[in-house]
Amino acid sequence: MREGKVQIIPLGGLGEIGKNSLAIRYGDDILVIDCGLMFPEDELLGIDVVIPDVTYLLENKECLRAIILTHGHEDHIGAIPYVLPHFDVPIYGTRLTLGLLEGKLEEHLPGFKADLREVRPRDLLTIGNFKVEFIRVSHSIPDAVAVAVHTPLGVILHSGDFKVDYTPVDGERIDFHRLAKLGEEGVLVLLSDSTNAERPGYTMSERVVGETFEETFRRSRNRILIATFASNIHRIQQAIIVAHRFGRKVAIAGRSMVNVVTVAHRLGYLQIPPGTMVELEEANRLPRHEVVILTTGSQGEPMSALTRMAMADHKLVEIYPGDTIIISAVPIPGNEKLVARVIDQLFKRGAEVLYETVSGLHVSGHPSQEELKLMISLTRPKFFIPIHGEYRMLMRHAELAREMGVKPENIFVAENGQVVEFSRKGGRFAGRVTAGRVLVDGLGVGDVGNIVLRDRKQLAKDGILIVVLAISQESGQVVAGPDIVSRGFVYVREAEELLEEAKAQVRAALEKCQEKGLNEWASIKAQVRDILGRFLYERTRRRPMILPIIMEV
Amino acid sequence: MREGKVQIIPLGGLGEIGKNSLAIRYGDDILVIDCGLMFPEDELLGIDVVIPDVTYLLENKECLRAIILTHGHEDHIGAIPYVLPHFDVPIYGTRLTLGLLEGKLEEHLPGFKADLREVRPRDLLTIGNFKVEFIRVSHSIPDAVAVAVHTPLGVILHSGDFKVDYTPVDGERIDFHRLAKLGEEGVLVLLSDSTNAERPGYTMSERVVGETFEETFRRSRNRILIATFASNIHRIQQAIIVAHRFGRKVAIAGRSMVNVVTVAHRLGYLQIPPGTMVELEEANRLPRHEVVILTTGSQGEPMSALTRMAMADHKLVEIYPGDTIIISAVPIPGNEKLVARVIDQLFKRGAEVLYETVSGLHVSGHPSQEELKLMISLTRPKFFIPIHGEYRMLMRHAELAREMGVKPENIFVAENGQVVEFSRKGGRFAGRVTAGRVLVDGLGVGDVGNIVLRDRKQLAKDGILIVVLAISQESGQVVAGPDIVSRGFVYVREAEELLEEAKAQVRAALEKCQEKGLNEWASIKAQVRDILGRFLYERTRRRPMILPIIMEV
Repeated sequence: MREGKVQIIPLGGLGEIGKNSLAIRYGDDILVIDCGLMFPEDELLGIDVVIPDVTYLLENKECLRAIILTHGHEDHIGAIPYVLPHFDVPIYGTRLTLGLLEGKLEEHLPGFKADLREVRPRDLLTIGNFKVEFIRVSHSIPDAVAVAVHTPLGVILHSGDFKVDYTPVDGERIDFHRLAKLGEEGVLVLLSDSTNAERPGYTMSERVVGETFEETFRRSRNRILIATFASNIHRIQQAIIVAHRFGRKVAIAGRSMVNVVTVAHRLGYLQIPPGTMVELEEANRLPRHEVVILTTGSQGEPMSALTRMAMADHKLVEIYPGDTIIISAVPIPGNEKLVARVIDQLFKRGAEVLYETVSGLHVSGHPSQEELKLMISLTRPKFFIPIHGEYRMLMRHAELAREMGVKPENIFVAENGQVVEFSRKGGRFAGRVTAGRVLVDGLGVGDVGNIVLRDRKQLAKDGILIVVLAISQESGQVVAGPDIVSRGFVYVREAEELLEEAKAQVRAALEKCQEKGLNEWASIKAQVRDILGRFLYERTRRRPMILPIIMEV
Repeated sequence: MREGKVQIIPLGGLGEIGKNSLAIRYGDDILVIDCGLMFPEDELLGIDVVIPDVTYLLENKECLRAIILTHGHEDHIGAIPYVLPHFDVPIYGTRLTLGLLEGKLEEHLPGFKADLREVRPRDLLTIGNFKVEFIRVSHSIPDAVAVAVHTPLGVILHSGDFKVDYTPVDGERIDFHRLAKLGEEGVLVLLSDSTNAERPGYTMSERVVGETFEETFRRSRNRILIATFASNIHRIQQAIIVAHRFGRKVAIAGRSMVNVVTVAHRLGYLQIPPGTMVELEEANRLPRHEVVILTTGSQGEPMSALTRMAMADHKLVEIYPGDTIIISAVPIPGNEKLVARVIDQLFKRGAEVLYETVSGLHVSGHPSQEELKLMISLTRPKFFIPIHGEYRMLMRHAELAREMGVKPENIFVAENGQVVEFSRKGGRFAGRVTAGRVLVDGLGVGDVGNIVLRDRKQLAKDGILIVVLAISQESGQVVAGPDIVSRGFVYVREAEELLEEAKAQVRAALEKCQEKGLNEWASIKAQVRDILGRFLYERTRRRPMILPIIMEV
């Protein structure tokens, strides 16, 4: 690529929530900011996670200088174990972020040696043609940063995920001064978090949740369970402090939360008064009013600890009447039903459940409209690109930027893979690169695509009907079968008659083939599929997958 | 059942939203109030609708005197076409309710002669030992009623679905006077709608939406599309009136809305100024600022008109930049993602979309907490049973009743099938009757159960692998195969090697059987399933369904 131009190349996180990843290119230097995963939507049957398509990076391997991480959330670091083996580049991130990443790498790539380089807010590194600067921001996980990339054409400021919390739990405020200074010197492009761009006003401080915890603890004479995101260390910290103040011991249920707490505590991001934490077994032996259990499952995830407790199938924790259960989260769109079911189950067990309908149980980690305006007015960008959000959120954020005086022609609402190029002359869309989603299913990365998904969809809807027959090589006659086996279609016991008739249909189809002198298997199979399909739809209004199998004996 | 006792037997709608149905029994007389359907949750793969299990009614056929309908919504009348053929009883309902039911019956049971009997608010009928009275209430569909069943033990008041709208679109207010009179004379049991029991305050009047429409029409110089529920005749009425006032023609997209509008207009529940309605084809020929299109799809249903427009695959309606699209609804829990996707698509086509984030676009048809209190204080029931809602909603409603002074021991939070019995002595839970859900898939009613669903789930997650081989009757040797066919598991093209190895595994399994002298097919199949399953999980971390088929030739 010619010098004198800088390109912004979003690889994920635009037009969607999750799998955030964005490349910045100047000449032959490419930086990647974040490389996250996304959890599959319902129609991606059987898929475990979705990661960005990094074809562009593979095609430009020799230009890739570094991967830079803004914070330790799955949707920002989760894809690294899948892509890192393809690249030999250093990864820069703050202490906690790298600590959490290390855990993932050990899990997915045991023994893999990654070149992880720790940075601190206000650090300034030289990477190729770039100077890269890290700026502290508040978010729902500690040690989150924005990234200012100084290029020969000017500063590109990537907000990461952020919020404005004037009273952060860890006392580490967003670095307004640095942002203001950059704004004064001039920011070429601002890339900013759009997750909450539809929300008017300000996002409340994380402290609010601590206060709600405190009230609840004051009222409760019984056991308290708090479900929240495993990675929300600020919230876990507040729960621990309040518990300690009220003389309660804290136990943790849920592997992911245990892992995060262990790392955060080891690295000094979580203060635990001595003797506060206990194992679940011990907690079960203590008087209930002396116990707090922190647990995963705030999204009603079927396998999570809280869901198991609700369904009375958790090994160590049983829900008792009188328990107070705080769901310190809001359902992520798509999870509403799951969460509601868990809440209902907990009520049925006699627990008091505090959830969405009670205010102050959760605050967002993302900036509402007034905070977005604050970011824009502090940094005074010439060009603006909304990132991290579904299309309508990006649109709303662009509207806010217009209202703040950014020239309409300087605002670019881009899609993943759409290159935005800046030069002395200005900014423009400069074509597309390969981008999209790669589906991960078990150990398979990218081996499940539309055909497989289409089949799974059909199988899921109406099941499958398999027709097997054996044809003799010499005579060409059917010597065994047709047999019919079905799964996921109808109760075989209740449908014997139907399946008998289906067999008859197949025989008829075969005879037809004989008459017509059809003998390539392909056309015989087509016949069977066709006649049987029509018959079954006629009789059941269902369209199971029909799979004729012919054996030659 | 002995006299001197009256039983409330909920068959659906308790602990869930939908398939509302409730039986009232005194001696040998049974009345059923409503018989609705429910749309399946995601995990009910391939299921079209869910209806109540009416085994109890079948077992007590000779006692069933009538089915009484409170209003014409799917979740109150939708199951009737499935159950009516089993019973020879009259159905009582108001004019519009029966009009909508007739349409359903014609569609599902062409030629079926149902005994439909029209009633009016304040009508009083004698049915067996009961006197049944109909009381007007406000709801999101006209002609909705509550039902007061006068039994020898006292009045059982069923609220139906209701809200308190002081300025209803059709001018038909809720009949406070009759409710007050009943309260004065004494209500034995109140059964009341819990759908919004978690919502503080009052539900706004439907008029509010009309005002929002008016503002939007005033601002718009272009085409307007309004998506709402097909059955919300009040809202459709307001849209038509506002359109007429602003000199716009109205066209309708979506079969279900066309049907409802036709019936409602024919029966006089919808006033249409002459010349206001046009066909879509004609609307396409008019200047855009003279057109309003009412459409289905406010829930993002994949096959609905609005979704097709958004995906640019509607035959007659194309979305143009500048169109204003009003989503006059909130997503029903579970539909959030679908709705969001449609909104994003509409934005991408350059339309201005007004949705949830704008207030006054939708109001609920159900009573908030203050209205529920009003109902309780007007009717002063001795006993209270919350109905129509998920468990936590019923609990909240029960709490409200306590706050209103109903004795805790007189409040019964019941589940479907749980009998609540009242006598001179008081009320008590009196055992259970069969109740639950019946799954409808295509023409099959109840022929899809747990086994089929479990299979569909496994097929959906990891697909299927079929192993076929032919064994000779005389020799008992494998004469053909093993062949492997797979669907929904992996890209066959990319997995040839894996499938070859899988075949080898099967051969190994077969040899093992020979050595062990295993020759019943069952144990051979088990072997194959076992060895192959372990191999595939080992290699892919997936568990496809493995289906060994042995042919004897």
